[in-house]
Parts: sequence; structure tokens; C-alpha cells
Amino acid sequence: MRTVKWNQNNYTLEMIDQRLLPVEFKVNEYSDYRDVAQAISDMVVRGAPAIGGAAAFGLAVAAYQSDAQTVDELREDLNQAVRVLEKARPTAVNLSWALKRIMRRTADVADSPDALREAVLEEAQKIADEDVQINKNMARHGAELIDDGDTIIHHCNTGALATVDWGTALGVIRTAHEQGKDIHVLVDETRPRLQGARLTAWELDRYNISYDIISDNMAGHFLSTGQVQKVVFGADRVAANGDVANKIGTYMLALAAKDNDVPAYSVVPTSTIDLSLASGDQIPIEERAVDEVLGLTLMGQKVAPEQASARNIAFDITPNRLISGIVTENGVVYPPFDVNLPPVVPED
Amino acid sequence: MRTVKWNQNNYTLEMIDQRLLPVEFKVNEYSDYRDVAQAISDMVVRGAPAIGGAAAFGLAVAAYQSDAQTVDELREDLNQAVRVLEKARPTAVNLSWALKRIMRRTADVADSPDALREAVLEEAQKIADEDVQINKNMARHGAELIDDGDTIIHHCNTGALATVDWGTALGVIRTAHEQGKDIHVLVDETRPRLQGARLTAWELDRYNISYDIISDNMAGHFLSTGQVQKVVFGADRVAANGDVANKIGTYMLALAAKDNDVPAYSVVPTSTIDLSLASGDQIPIEERAVDEVLGLTLMGQKVAPEQASARNIAFDITPNRLISGIVTENGVVYPPFDVNLPPVVPED
Repeated sequence: MRTVKWNQNNYTLEMIDQRLLPVEFKVNEYSDYRDVAQAISDMVVRGAPAIGGAAAFGLAVAAYQSDAQTVDELREDLNQAVRVLEKARPTAVNLSWALKRIMRRTADVADSPDALREAVLEEAQKIADEDVQINKNMARHGAELIDDGDTIIHHCNTGALATVDWGTALGVIRTAHEQGKDIHVLVDETRPRLQGARLTAWELDRYNISYDIISDNMAGHFLSTGQVQKVVFGADRVAANGDVANKIGTYMLALAAKDNDVPAYSVVPTSTIDLSLASGDQIPIEERAVDEVLGLTLMGQKVAPEQASARNIAFDITPNRLISGIVTENGVVYPPFDVNLPPVVPED
Repeated sequence: MRTVKWNQNNYTLEMIDQRLLPVEFKVNEYSDYRDVAQAISDMVVRGAPAIGGAAAFGLAVAAYQSDAQTVDELREDLNQAVRVLEKARPTAVNLSWALKRIMRRTADVADSPDALREAVLEEAQKIADEDVQINKNMARHGAELIDDGDTIIHHCNTGALATVDWGTALGVIRTAHEQGKDIHVLVDETRPRLQGARLTAWELDRYNISYDIISDNMAGHFLSTGQVQKVVFGADRVAANGDVANKIGTYMLALAAKDNDVPAYSVVPTSTIDLSLASGDQIPIEERAVDEVLGLTLMGQKVAPEQASARNIAFDITPNRLISGIVTENGVVYPPFDVNLPPVVPED
């Protein structure tokens, strides 16, 4: 089952509701692009590549939802859908990348509204199918960096659930495991939304890969006591200089890795690299509702005082000096990133 | 109300049950030193100075609990109580410090068992009373480091609840606030036991000090974006070279502070400084039950998969190179700590 998937029977987008995992496995069906945008905002689907796929199919939903009678009318409806979808979340560049790619590649379709609808869907499907292949290629390149016996710290969820299928950083771990390498994963629980404890642990259980969940702030202890050989994570956007915007906590993790000479790799499809931004400080950082921080119960007991005040920053910037390599579908890119990015990209 | 308090009416130790805060304020009564040891293990009381006070009164409980008819018999019972109490938690040195001090200072009492009982209680009471005064002195020294307008990141709970009264690092914040300085506190929620979100936020509410709870992994973002002027925390044990054992996450926090040239201060009574250990790697690090990591519910939903595996490291070592100063009741100690520790201590 793919994380995001087109249902051709009724022209809907199907997505695993990741908010319910690991307790419940449920697939939602979307027939309105505005609901797709809301689902992205609410984190029914999350992970930069999966958000890209969801947005792509969201535009296909918009195409078939529209009762436009002319190509121009339909294109107007699609533009409106792009405006709504691209605002769903600000940090992951894959969202706008997917929408722009579809609009660009269907710009010449003028035969009929239905031809345009089909072209939009075809491009969305292509993005989704490519994502799986790209992940496999990334995983193959990244797995070469993993040694037999490695203990690896992994942040957030970057597995099949964060992509259309297979995964980025977790895909590297999966492929290394399938190659027969003996691997142990320390799973950052990843406050506040706990994607590590909820989703990565769930995936690792399914893949039969050995792991322990840790709270994010324990990573430093395991690194400084020599128990960790690699640190891996994905990215929501990479700037032209190699600064990495990723799930909050990545910066402190990468810093602790650097402080102990443990290599830290960001694993990303090239669609996550945003060459229009010179450095990380230009990447928009999302701040989310505080109930994700305050709504905790620990061993049956409510945690924070009523009406406590909080902040909820969803991403941080890891400066390029802390990144040992950026693993892409075209190979591993090493510093200096401002020179070596982007990696050679196949013909567009 | 003190966190730990002797009840002379029935020779019992009263302690606020900190596991129930902020939902419920309840005081437990202890008439068996083994229950005191269990309460320390279970974190009814926590925080290095408060643990010292609880252990001291725990020994007084043992003295009055014993039906020994001779001084020698009573001393044997006390030695047995020391053995049980000192094992309650391994990392905070204040525990064994308090027990050793009482046994040393009552070593000459030979008149009668009741005289020894009274001497033990008197010394325990002295430790508790001194702790409050020591905290006030630390707070006064530390408050000089705080500027009007500072935003301060605080880790774990180091307030009145972590001591007999007033607090160490949070005591500094309280005193600076009482001096009229405009202060905002970013409260590390402090996974896994969430002492920040539960206890520090509860205390700051009571003191009317402005704060926001953040997840521990957000500290790096606030530091790297220039929103923080000071970082403060306590310690459970400080080695002779200034390495600091403190609540898990302190190392990554201090590292992020250093990476952004923000000063990080450890605020500790001199009883927390263990000159018998040359460096931090000799400090025993407690590992606790995994339900503290796995037993989370977020917004009503269980987080980790059933039977997920986890690790729960309770403390980490922050190397002295990341510590800007150690605030004690005798003043602020600056690097090089191996030369400048201990600060001048009043006659023992």
C-alpha cells in the first residue's frame, strides 16, 4: 500500500491517515482538493516527498472536481487549487515543486478540458511513480555509507510513510538491512508530534529491524559515549549552500554528532533542493498549534498546567558545516555544498 | 510549604508528591525509611538538593523507627538505613553527601540511643535549613549574571520543588525577577519525565514569571535565531574538573548554547561538587524504566507501538568546555574549573 495513491474508479486520492498510527491503520478518500490541503495541514500525510505526492494528486482531484467546460476555465480552476494547496504547509519545498511541475508540463495542453484533466493526472502519477524509484536509488547510494554493525540515530519519520513508498533516510536503513548488514536504530521519538515513536517504530517493526526508541535529548549521551556510528535524517528543504531545513531537533542532533566526529547524513530527493535560496535562513519555518506541545499525558497523567503557554516550532535549520553528506538519487554530495550542489540531474 | 519537611508530632517525613503535580497537590507522610528510599526511587521527590534533604530526614525516620536499646544497636540500624537510602538513586551526590555528613557528625554521640536519635534529627534539620539559605545565596550570586530583558532557557526543574525551598537555577530566575528584571523563560519540557512542563511551569505560574514551554529539541532553534541570552540548569553531580552530570538533555542544550555564544550556567550548592571524581566519565549514570519513554499519550492518542523497545537514560555529562560558569553559594566559579573548584567554602 502506497502512502498516497490515486483511485481511478472514482477519481479520488487515497491516503493513509498517519495521525491514527500505530493504533489504527485507516485509509481516507479525498474528492475535494480543499480537503487535501486541509489533510496536509493537519498532518494526515507528512514528510516532504509524501506531501509532494499528495499535492500532485490533490491537483488531479481539482481537475476532475471542476465542471469547467473550456480549457481556460479549467486552467483557472487549477490555478485556484494551486494557490490553496501550496499554502497547506510552508517549509517542505516538494509541495510547490510538484504543483509547479504539473502546471509547467501541462501548459501546452489545449485540446479539451478532459485532455488537460488527463494530462494533470498523468503528471501527478508520474511524480508518484518516480518518487518510489528515486527513493530506491537514494537508498542504494546511502546504503554504501552504512557499515555492518552500525548503530544509527534516526530523526523523525523518513520511511515509506514520509514518501510515496520506501523512504529516504529510513529507506537507506531498509536497504542496508536487506543487504544483510546488522544494524541497530536509535529512534528519536521526535517531539512534539512524535513521528519517530509513532511511525518509524511502527515501520521498523514491520521490517524486522532492531531498534530502541529514545527521547530526542538522549542522542547526545549515546553519541558522546561512543555507541553511535551514523546519524541520518531527511530534509524538508535544502538551500543552495547545503543548509538543511528539517524536523525540529535536527540541528541539535547534527551538532552532537559533529561534536563526537560521527557523520551525519541528510537523505533527500533532488526535488527537495531549492537552488533559489542561497542559504537556510531564507527558508520559511512553520510554527504550529501549541496543543502538539501541551497535549501530552504521561503514564495516565496530564502533563502541563491548564492554560500553560508554549511555542511550537516545527522545523529548524542545520547549517551546512554540520552535514557530512547529502544523499540524493544521483549520488552522495559532499562539502563544499555550494560548489557540489546540485548533483548531476538526469535530463528534465 | 517546604518540599521535604519533618513532622515532629509523629516523627515522620512529609514530602510533596511531585508525581501528581500539576494536577494534584498532595503531601505524603513517611514513617519507614525504606518507604523514603522507595519514594526517592519513584521520584515522589527529585532534584539533587531535595533528594539530599529527603535522605537526611529518611535517616531521622530510621532513628525513631528503630527500637534499639543501646547506642551500638541504633548505630547498626542507622548503618543499615544508610545502605538502603544511598542506593535509592545513583547520580545525585547530595544523597550520599547528606548521609555521610550525618553519620560523621553524630559519630561521637554515645550517651544514649535517644541522644543519638536527637542528634541525627538535629543534623538532618540543619541540612534542610542550610539548604534554603544556600539556595538564597546562590540565587543572589546568579542573579547578577541575569540582565533586564533576558530570555533564558531552563532545563528540568530546579525550583523550590527540586530543593528544600527556593531553588538553584530557577532560584536565580526568581531572584532576578524579584529584583525587577524583566525576564522570559523558555521552559524545556524535559523528556522523559517532563519535569519542566509539569513542575517548572507550575512554579513559574505561581511566581508570575513569563514563560513558554518548548520541547527540548526546540532550544537550538531559539538559540540559533538569537532569541536567547542565557541558559541555566542545575546539576546532580559536578566532578573536580567541572564536568556536569545533570538531567538528560543538558549536554545537547549546552552544546547549542556554545555554538551560538550564549553563556550556559550550572547552579549548584557546593554539596553537589564531588571532588573525589576527577572527571565526568566517572559519574554513575542512572538508566530507568522504559515506561517513562513509552507511556505517552498525545492529544488523546497512544504514541508508541505495543511492545516497542526503548532506552531511558536519566542523566548525561556536559563537558566543562561547554560550561560558562558554576554558580554556588560561595560565588560564581569560572574556568579553568580544575583550578578554581571548589570555591572558598566556609569552615566546616
